[in-house]
This record gives sequence, structure tokens and C-alpha cells, in this order.
Amino acid sequence: MPDDATSNPHPVTVRSRTEADLQDPVFRRGVVALLGALAYGELVSFFTIVHDADTAPQPRDKVALARVAVHEFDHYERLVARLKELGVDPQETMAPFAKAIDTWHHRIQSSSWLEGLMKVYAGNSIATDFYRECAALVDPPTRSLVEEVLKDSGQTEFAKAELTKAIVADGTVAGRLALWGRRLVGEALSQAQRVAAEQDELTSLLIDDGSGHGFDLGELMRLFTRITDAHTARMEALGLTA
Amino acid sequence: MPDDATSNPHPVTVRSRTEADLQDPVFRRGVVALLGALAYGELVSFFTIVHDADTAPQPRDKVALARVAVHEFDHYERLVARLKELGVDPQETMAPFAKAIDTWHHRIQSSSWLEGLMKVYAGNSIATDFYRECAALVDPPTRSLVEEVLKDSGQTEFAKAELTKAIVADGTVAGRLALWGRRLVGEALSQAQRVAAEQDELTSLLIDDGSGHGFDLGELMRLFTRITDAHTARMEALGLTA
Repeated sequence: MPDDATSNPHPVTVRSRTEADLQDPVFRRGVVALLGALAYGELVSFFTIVHDADTAPQPRDKVALARVAVHEFDHYERLVARLKELGVDPQETMAPFAKAIDTWHHRIQSSSWLEGLMKVYAGNSIATDFYRECAALVDPPTRSLVEEVLKDSGQTEFAKAELTKAIVADGTVAGRLALWGRRLVGEALSQAQRVAAEQDELTSLLIDDGSGHGFDLGELMRLFTRITDAHTARMEALGLTA
Repeated sequence: MPDDATSNPHPVTVRSRTEADLQDPVFRRGVVALLGALAYGELVSFFTIVHDADTAPQPRDKVALARVAVHEFDHYERLVARLKELGVDPQETMAPFAKAIDTWHHRIQSSSWLEGLMKVYAGNSIATDFYRECAALVDPPTRSLVEEVLKDSGQTEFAKAELTKAIVADGTVAGRLALWGRRLVGEALSQAQRVAAEQDELTSLLIDDGSGHGFDLGELMRLFTRITDAHTARMEALGLTA
């Protein structure tokens, strides 16, 4: 990893791409697929976070979570702008990911304010970690955009503080949230596998099939280990077992 | 009406306020109340428009309406910033208006995509017209802010185009939407009366009790006539009777 060590903190040994690589139709389709998945994810997050915000017990919390949602929408708009720059129809690009992402949100529909916060704290973070790893594989302008839209706008800290308060106030909450956290990570992995199996364009970006680009099997295992470890650390930070 | 004829297009003869008038506690409380009502309205609009967007038949429309909602949230944030500038707690300022505004939205809960669009096209426009008239009564910085947040960000045209398409495609839609439009204006007037009866601080801003500031009875009647006429014109533009 020579020149872009600062923008990619992980020990990934993949060969860096340049903007010129976008001339390669396979690579270009992979980048477009990644942006499409990310954009659709942000759009659905916007709707589900607004829905969760509406269940907030306090007006102040309602507004704080609405603000998180609005940030997601802004990210959506920027990803769509990049897709247009690359000359593709954003709606068509997002469509193949609708089923997996909708199913994920459908299966982890939160039934309370605290479950909604756990989706933000644990669920969004897993997705963010995964996409941030993928950012290492794309051209520099796309990478900057992806890293920028994945930047935490304070929502993780907000959700963590609220969850900590609730766990301290009522000991029985911890068990239920630990269970919910395990469900979030389980459903995330299951939908990620589904996408990996169905979306050749995305997997050809992520997996090195001998071209020297993408993750080899060892790197992929380390990547998932990092994501799982980070999830465990987040749960432990709340005093929960992952 | 001498110096501010450009910022107030209506033939209102109220005496203009200056920023120094904010030293007057009665005037200041009136301005704060107006901003509070407006801010709470924008916040609730954000949630209801997102809810309506979620019922859009096409992803494209879903996004277009979500974008309208995000604009409302931005307006909310700017109104709250002005309330903080004036040294008041935004949540406390909004609280007295929660019941009337919540009731309004509750009574006109749209049950379809087209009803949701009519809320944007007809309902929001009535509220906007009313607040724009009120802007004539406040200090210049507050007036600029109110006028700016009331600026149409394309949502009325978007809703109008969609509604026109639907009416052309299916003649039976017209009758139902005409009925819905009448309900929107009826509920708006009824909640406005409720606020006027309950919120002394706001009415003391709007109504001239002999101080020379605020609308006298004749001006108030003309104001409501203008708002009703504008509503009728909007309905007729869709080929509907108001």
C-alpha cells in the first residue's frame, strides 16, 4: 500500500485503482453497483430513521433523530449526483439492491424507541464499516465521496448516550438489547451474503479473481473479522455481550 | 406604506416595525409566538410529508417528495436558530401550538398518494399565504427569515403536475379531490380560529387593539378574502370547484 495509506487505515494489500481504470467496463460496472447499493441504503435509512424518530419520547430526541435522517438524505443526493456523473440512471442502478435492503429493514423493524436507536448505533455501523472497506477498491474521486458520506455526523454518539441512559435506568433493558443486537448482526450478514450471491457486478469489484484487484480470500476473512470485532466492541461499550 | 413596499406586496396599511421594537416585551412575545407556530408547523410537515412520500407509487416520486420534506426540516432549523438568537427555548415556544397543528394533521391524514399531494398543493399553500401576511407585522430580520422559509422550493408545481396527470387519466378522481380540498380549507380555518382564541401572544401581534400595529377588522377580512381567493384559484387551476 504505497500512496493512499492515509485514506485507507486498514491493512488491505489490494492494488490501488486510478480514475483511468473507469475505462474498464467491468471495473466501472462494479463502482456503479457499489454506489447504487450505497445510495439505495441511504434512501431507505432516511425513511426508517424518520419513522423511528416519530416514536421518540421527547420532542428534543425526535428532532435529533430527524436531523440524522436528513443527513442520510443529503448523502443519498450526493451519491446520485456521482452516478449521474458516471452517465448512468440512478434508479436503474439502485433497483437490483432494493430487495435485499428492503428485506433487511423489514426483518429488523424496530418496535420501540430503544430498538430504533440500536439500529442506528449497531446496525448502521456494521453497514458503514463494510462500505468503508469497499472504498479501498474504487477510484480516488469515488473513494473520497464514499468516505465522506460514511462520516459519522454524531448519530452514533447520540444513540450510544441514549442507550447507556436507558440501560442504567432499567437493568432489564440490557438483556433485550443484547438479543436485538445479535439479531441485527445476523440479519446484516445474511442479507450481505444474498447480495454477494446475486450481484455479480458488485462481487467482481470486491473479490480478486486473479486480476490482482479486489480482496483475496484471506483478506476477505480478515475484513469480516474486523467488522465483527468492531461490533463486539460497540456492544461491550454498552456493557452488553455481543 | 412607505419604505417596505417591495417586501410586502399586499395593500396592508399596518405601521412597519423596526428591530428596536423587539425591546417592547409584548411585541417580542408576539414575534416569538409566530416563529414558534411556524417552526412547529415545519417540523410536523416534515414528518407528514415523509410519511406521504412513503406511499408514492414510483421511486422517483418518493424521492421528489422526500426532498420537499428535507427542505421543511431545513426551514425548521433556521426558525429554531432565530428563536435561540432571541434568547428563548425553542421547545417551550413551540409547545403551545402543538395541539392545534397536530389536530390539523390528524384530521386531514391522507389515505392515498393523491390526497397527500393535495395537502402539499392546497393545504401547505393556505398556511404559507397566512404566514406570509403575518410577516408584514414583524421586525425586518424576522420578516426576511419568514419570507425566505416560506419560499416555494418547487413542491407546489410538482404536486400540481402530478395531480393534473391523475385527473386527466381518471375523471372520477376530480370529484374526490374537490371534496378533499374543501375539507383541507375547512379544517385549516377551524384550527386557525382555535389558535386565535387560545394564543393571546400571537393575536396581540396580529390584531390592532388601538396601538396602530396589527390588522384592524377590515384588513383582517381582506386578508382572509385574499387567502380564500388564492385557494379557489389553485383549485380552479386543476379544473376543480373550490
